[in-house]
Amino acid sequence: MKTYQVVGIGNAMVDVLTRADDAFLAEAGIEKGIMQLIDMDRAVELYSRVGPAEEISGGSAANTIAGIAHLGGRCAYVGKVKDDQLGAIFAHDLRAQGADYATAMAPKDHAHETGRCIVIVTPDGERSMNTYLGVTEFLEPSDIDPHQMAQAEWIFLEGYRFDGPDSHAAFAKAINACKPHGGKVSITLSDPFCVERHRDAFRLMIREDVDLLFANRAEIMSLYRTEDFAAARAAAGREVEVVVATDSENGVYVMNGGGEVHVPAVPTHVVDATGAGDLFAGAFLWGLSEGHPLEICARMGNVAASEVISHIGARVQADLKALFARHGLL
Amino acid sequence: MKTYQVVGIGNAMVDVLTRADDAFLAEAGIEKGIMQLIDMDRAVELYSRVGPAEEISGGSAANTIAGIAHLGGRCAYVGKVKDDQLGAIFAHDLRAQGADYATAMAPKDHAHETGRCIVIVTPDGERSMNTYLGVTEFLEPSDIDPHQMAQAEWIFLEGYRFDGPDSHAAFAKAINACKPHGGKVSITLSDPFCVERHRDAFRLMIREDVDLLFANRAEIMSLYRTEDFAAARAAAGREVEVVVATDSENGVYVMNGGGEVHVPAVPTHVVDATGAGDLFAGAFLWGLSEGHPLEICARMGNVAASEVISHIGARVQADLKALFARHGLL
Repeated sequence: MKTYQVVGIGNAMVDVLTRADDAFLAEAGIEKGIMQLIDMDRAVELYSRVGPAEEISGGSAANTIAGIAHLGGRCAYVGKVKDDQLGAIFAHDLRAQGADYATAMAPKDHAHETGRCIVIVTPDGERSMNTYLGVTEFLEPSDIDPHQMAQAEWIFLEGYRFDGPDSHAAFAKAINACKPHGGKVSITLSDPFCVERHRDAFRLMIREDVDLLFANRAEIMSLYRTEDFAAARAAAGREVEVVVATDSENGVYVMNGGGEVHVPAVPTHVVDATGAGDLFAGAFLWGLSEGHPLEICARMGNVAASEVISHIGARVQADLKALFARHGLL
Repeated sequence: MKTYQVVGIGNAMVDVLTRADDAFLAEAGIEKGIMQLIDMDRAVELYSRVGPAEEISGGSAANTIAGIAHLGGRCAYVGKVKDDQLGAIFAHDLRAQGADYATAMAPKDHAHETGRCIVIVTPDGERSMNTYLGVTEFLEPSDIDPHQMAQAEWIFLEGYRFDGPDSHAAFAKAINACKPHGGKVSITLSDPFCVERHRDAFRLMIREDVDLLFANRAEIMSLYRTEDFAAARAAAGREVEVVVATDSENGVYVMNGGGEVHVPAVPTHVVDATGAGDLFAGAFLWGLSEGHPLEICARMGNVAASEVISHIGARVQADLKALFARHGLL
């Protein structure tokens, strides 16, 4: 048995969660519903304009791994924070959830701080993310422990992490340490604009190395440059063993071996959409590594997503296994 | 018209909110339902043992002032943080709510950090607080601006702030700058053990300077060394113009000019009791400075308390004025 069911690699972030209306987004020049990268000056300026906030550990792949840890899965996370107060908060929350986390912190004298994401939640529950990457942009190959990757049944790569000078090399090191030992590679595209920025790198990695692709409607259509969601899924299905394409309240499509099943979403009142995709992936990967059929994994993912969007913050609060049992999945 | 309806002075804290059961409290040596002071070593040790957390600005008087700002009241806060990430969070949240906040930050090289309170919420909604005061203990007379205090209709003193080497002198400076200009003094006893530690200082200040006393059942009985709640209220009523004694779900007693009225609590499902007393005081003081009768102020306080205990965190989330209107108070 390998030490880890899943090892995730991504941007280590603390979320700064605040509420505002659409007029504020327009006035502040924030594009609704997506992730936009901002620098420290913009982070300071924007923070000075938003209302009172709550700080909750986030980061897309970190949310996924926290979900797997919550489910009792054996998992670890790789992502860089600084040796500062926000870095300590991030590390605490992940370890306290039960995930291994040993990435070296950037030292106190590093020019940048721990990354943070100013998440503005509008009354419709949609979130608009403004990300100051900080030190997490500087994850490099030396942060990847090949022994850890060799001990992973699955590695889970966060698409956002394609931004940053040494990230592609870090991903390559992780893949090359994992696959020869029988491990498999999963990736999430993260964001349509991130796909735009790195389409060729995504396409190459997906063709060559990826066994399981997570993407939502906008991301997979961006990847294959098509306005046709079904065509994009079909294109992905020709390149990857398992394709999991989410479509918000319209549910999920799972493609494997030429066949495709549709799994409806779990109806929920959306309070804060942050983390829906992350927790979907966490529950899906956990189910898969526990030996459940793909359709059950997708249903677990939908239940987990519905939990995390029912409250503020992208980390799970309710007992997911109990929810799975209530839905007849365990 | 004075610049401020209320200026609050207290311990500036960021709350670290986490959930645990009673067995954890017992095992970790935490006394349930009260505030206990801890040093940095204990803070680090305890933090390493608790589960994932959320960080939300807190501090008793700061919660009160944030509530007044939320209501549109003219208000300011005095309390010390450090120039670090948690200090920036605290300052942001208070200013973003609309309160003036200009206390000098302790410099980056100060030996202590911004204060934090590890708040452990048990399934019954009760909170057990573990406070590392950090730099907020070092509020001193030079942090009190006499011109600001002269511009306050009310000052609001947090009992917790009686801990710390220069705090009594700082309070005296605030009182002496406020009262000669027609301002009035309110105080909250904060905690029965805090009363134990500083009973003589509390008693002297209450007799000599306090116009409005906030206390809960345990605190006022500790202050007057009696097991009889009614006797304690009567004793306070002989020394202070207005006595407001809260008794959790049993409501509030307001004593003034020899008469006493009882105002029932607003029934609520308790999620997290943190901040109930703070928001009660905020709504009460706001109502008073807006010219409402004492009984209406108490009912406003009860509505505000019921809002803050219905969710995690000690800052108000719903629209309090709308709630007051729904209860026929505005």
